[in-house]
Amino acid sequence: MRLVVVGAGGRMGRMLIRAVAETEGCTLSGAIEREGAPVLGQDAGVLAGLAPLGVAVTDDPLPVFAAAEGVLDFTTPAATTFFAELAAQARIVHVVGTTGMDEADLAKLAAAAHHARIVRSGNMSLGVNLLAGLVRKVSAALGEDFDIEIVEMHHRMKVDAPSGTALLLGEAAAEGRGVALSDTRVSTRDGHTGARRPGDIGFATLRGGTVVGDHSVVFAGAGERLTLSHHAEDRGIFARGAVRAAQWAFDRPPGLYSMADVLGL
Amino acid sequence: MRLVVVGAGGRMGRMLIRAVAETEGCTLSGAIEREGAPVLGQDAGVLAGLAPLGVAVTDDPLPVFAAAEGVLDFTTPAATTFFAELAAQARIVHVVGTTGMDEADLAKLAAAAHHARIVRSGNMSLGVNLLAGLVRKVSAALGEDFDIEIVEMHHRMKVDAPSGTALLLGEAAAEGRGVALSDTRVSTRDGHTGARRPGDIGFATLRGGTVVGDHSVVFAGAGERLTLSHHAEDRGIFARGAVRAAQWAFDRPPGLYSMADVLGL
Amino acid sequence: MRLVVVGAGGRMGRMLIRAVAETEGCTLSGAIEREGAPVLGQDAGVLAGLAPLGVAVTDDPLPVFAAAEGVLDFTTPAATTFFAELAAQARIVHVVGTTGMDEADLAKLAAAAHHARIVRSGNMSLGVNLLAGLVRKVSAALGEDFDIEIVEMHHRMKVDAPSGTALLLGEAAAEGRGVALSDTRVSTRDGHTGARRPGDIGFATLRGGTVVGDHSVVFAGAGERLTLSHHAEDRGIFARGAVRAAQWAFDRPPGLYSMADVLGL
Amino acid sequence: MRLVVVGAGGRMGRMLIRAVAETEGCTLSGAIEREGAPVLGQDAGVLAGLAPLGVAVTDDPLPVFAAAEGVLDFTTPAATTFFAELAAQARIVHVVGTTGMDEADLAKLAAAAHHARIVRSGNMSLGVNLLAGLVRKVSAALGEDFDIEIVEMHHRMKVDAPSGTALLLGEAAAEGRGVALSDTRVSTRDGHTGARRPGDIGFATLRGGTVVGDHSVVFAGAGERLTLSHHAEDRGIFARGAVRAAQWAFDRPPGLYSMADVLGL
Repeated sequence: MRLVVVGAGGRMGRMLIRAVAETEGCTLSGAIEREGAPVLGQDAGVLAGLAPLGVAVTDDPLPVFAAAEGVLDFTTPAATTFFAELAAQARIVHVVGTTGMDEADLAKLAAAAHHARIVRSGNMSLGVNLLAGLVRKVSAALGEDFDIEIVEMHHRMKVDAPSGTALLLGEAAAEGRGVALSDTRVSTRDGHTGARRPGDIGFATLRGGTVVGDHSVVFAGAGERLTLSHHAEDRGIFARGAVRAAQWAFDRPPGLYSMADVLGL
Repeated sequence: MRLVVVGAGGRMGRMLIRAVAETEGCTLSGAIEREGAPVLGQDAGVLAGLAPLGVAVTDDPLPVFAAAEGVLDFTTPAATTFFAELAAQARIVHVVGTTGMDEADLAKLAAAAHHARIVRSGNMSLGVNLLAGLVRKVSAALGEDFDIEIVEMHHRMKVDAPSGTALLLGEAAAEGRGVALSDTRVSTRDGHTGARRPGDIGFATLRGGTVVGDHSVVFAGAGERLTLSHHAEDRGIFARGAVRAAQWAFDRPPGLYSMADVLGL
Repeated sequence: MRLVVVGAGGRMGRMLIRAVAETEGCTLSGAIEREGAPVLGQDAGVLAGLAPLGVAVTDDPLPVFAAAEGVLDFTTPAATTFFAELAAQARIVHVVGTTGMDEADLAKLAAAAHHARIVRSGNMSLGVNLLAGLVRKVSAALGEDFDIEIVEMHHRMKVDAPSGTALLLGEAAAEGRGVALSDTRVSTRDGHTGARRPGDIGFATLRGGTVVGDHSVVFAGAGERLTLSHHAEDRGIFARGAVRAAQWAFDRPPGLYSMADVLGL
Repeated sequence: MRLVVVGAGGRMGRMLIRAVAETEGCTLSGAIEREGAPVLGQDAGVLAGLAPLGVAVTDDPLPVFAAAEGVLDFTTPAATTFFAELAAQARIVHVVGTTGMDEADLAKLAAAAHHARIVRSGNMSLGVNLLAGLVRKVSAALGEDFDIEIVEMHHRMKVDAPSGTALLLGEAAAEGRGVALSDTRVSTRDGHTGARRPGDIGFATLRGGTVVGDHSVVFAGAGERLTLSHHAEDRGIFARGAVRAAQWAFDRPPGLYSMADVLGL
């Protein structure tokens, strides 16, 4: 499968290049960065700490998409909605790991998915998607006698909170209870908060160091606690998951898929 | 429901007395201790830090069992197998939270269960039994690419290792993989161990302080870890679970049941 | 030492009564609740799950303080500042475990401490006060290359955030760096936060179940993390610490003391 | 400073090559592997995922040591004692991160240290060495009322247990109490263990996945627990620590040093 990496010069972009190069049956057919990026023209393999791959980084996605079968995208909401249109026109697979997308962005993805095969997830790892399934199940089994709290930690450079993965886990918890996360989400506690409201789903955010991503979902009842946690050691798990998603989507009909679909969970 | 507590003078015994007294629809009809125990003759309520309940601790179980509908038993393997016969004769419910039972002990329980309704579990809490179900499921989903390790901590007075609950979780992990725990269990690592054998299920034991019971099951794969944990804050959860088990078993046919049956998991 | 418990009907009040009754050399000489409280007139021992102590709960502190040598106080800021004046007039020890006090409240305590021996702490446990000392030391040793994050969890009924103990730990971290916590404290992260500011001290708050109190201070650097945690199993540690503080302060000169003074840390 | 990496083809060897190449003021002057190793003759930079460094891997350490100022060594006890003699003859710095050394091995290192500057540590990270200092201090402050347990997790390929770092932490705990670790160490708990012996220092070992190294020291008392933990995200922290140790030792007199010396703790 011929795959393109967008945002090739970033930390996740380089990871994706390595994951494509290391996956049997996949080749890197293109690497995109934004206009003016210092890495334009460099060999994508060298950029990723590998031997040269014969693919120069470029800022012109059109011909690159036309010659590819899939694109791996962990960029920004604005870039992703732009690439989604191009991928739909090129009728190639679009794997989206971008976080921080709002309702309008998601509507654009959904529109593009009439023609493209899009796999989108706040987290591409096997473990996190399995965790989300467990959270849904436990949340349904325990009911509101057990309070749900979600705590995550990421590196100091992360710019949004809670993480996309924390929200994904919160959605799973809310689904398990048959409620909307928007009605039950509490992301801020500071000063006089009053007692916890039954049914709330709380989020707590830590930032620091170079933490790749830790997430825990706590179910706290009378006299006991159940905690389900995921710890990511390196970004390679997300990159490998993205390549796996692209391969899975290759012969699927157009549509908007999740990692749960890819992993058969 | 008229319930008897055996081992009434111990820490769990007192907890059970309180749980019976606090549960609507249940009354304490007897409290048993071994011959020569210093608490014989005391009021069971006072012993448990409650108002007097009008039930004196005795060392003669026979008349007490005959007048009861169920017995709650967190004692020793020898005592439990003895009580199981009495409970079977009296045709009353026998809830067994005793740990450290060997094959011969379990065979006696199974024999008694032809006539009695026995609920036996290494851990009577809702959370742990739910956790065991999750472990079975995750173990089946992930396969041997993810190594399974079980770590537990209990107070300094605990005399056996690993805990009954850790073994219960190990059984669940082994079932998920379709293997026997006895073939895959590793409880000791000291000195030159060599690399981990694929498929092993490891146990690690911590002892100290007054820890009621912490258990974690770790699934460690390439670049990521999933950890499912239970933390017990106080023994009340086990006592309340035992009372709930007795109530559930009241109108069941004779047999050997688990807490998963009681909780409908 | 003759000790009074104020807020005697609350959860901590009952704990304090038990701790006084169980400490050699101490006797409960009074138990105070607010006007109209349903427990007025009850025996304090019975209220605390003990045998009767011959001390009825009353709403009139004046004669009770006059006959006592110390008062144990885990109430509210308003009540505590009121009791501080009475304790100063009676020239007795005042142990304050009340949280949520503002600058004005603390100024009143400081004024009362000209005449009274006041021991005040956001947390009366040996472990937490030792932890605060470690945090100060590590914070000084590591500098700003390591980001400091403080995360705590308490039961669902707690009404303020972050906990007094979390703030105490944050103060220790700030002192270690020679900065003011007020300049570096970040208690809220929600939405687009931007990258972490160097030198920030972050707080994250979880609420749920019956958690007595868990606190962790994370030092997150490049490629490694140091985490210092305290886990309280039951409120008894705070009550025993308060009694110990009263005993320690008995023959000290008037002043405002901390648990670090009491524990000699 | 001209540095040699021995065991250059292994995972830590490659890490060390990268760390040397990335540290200002250091150059890689040699790379050693054992006779017959498949990487002999390769460029050490390329081997480490970098641009070529012009240094070929060789199996002849003698001329390489003669031309160097220091050697970085995370190999095996047998190899390390051999290299220690060569380093002493060449009068260069020897940084030893090798684990699993026995008394006889350590005696050889001590002998070599009459002529060489050797820095040896079970763990070269800033965080772990700081942690060891904290453990010593807390162990001394708390005494035997608090039980000490040390739990560690490493990847599935690790062949010894407990880890060198866990033992280093255990030594610190024993020192704090003024006892010998050999008298108090408990590394195995399986079956009927009896109650915990006061003063024991327990070790628990987990193995799985690709875990770089997690260590926790638990101090468990009545009603509370203090836990001091270190989490290593990647081996880079050990490699950077080793380079820092070599630089520190450059102008020191001959002797056997620890990382605590290097870090000034």
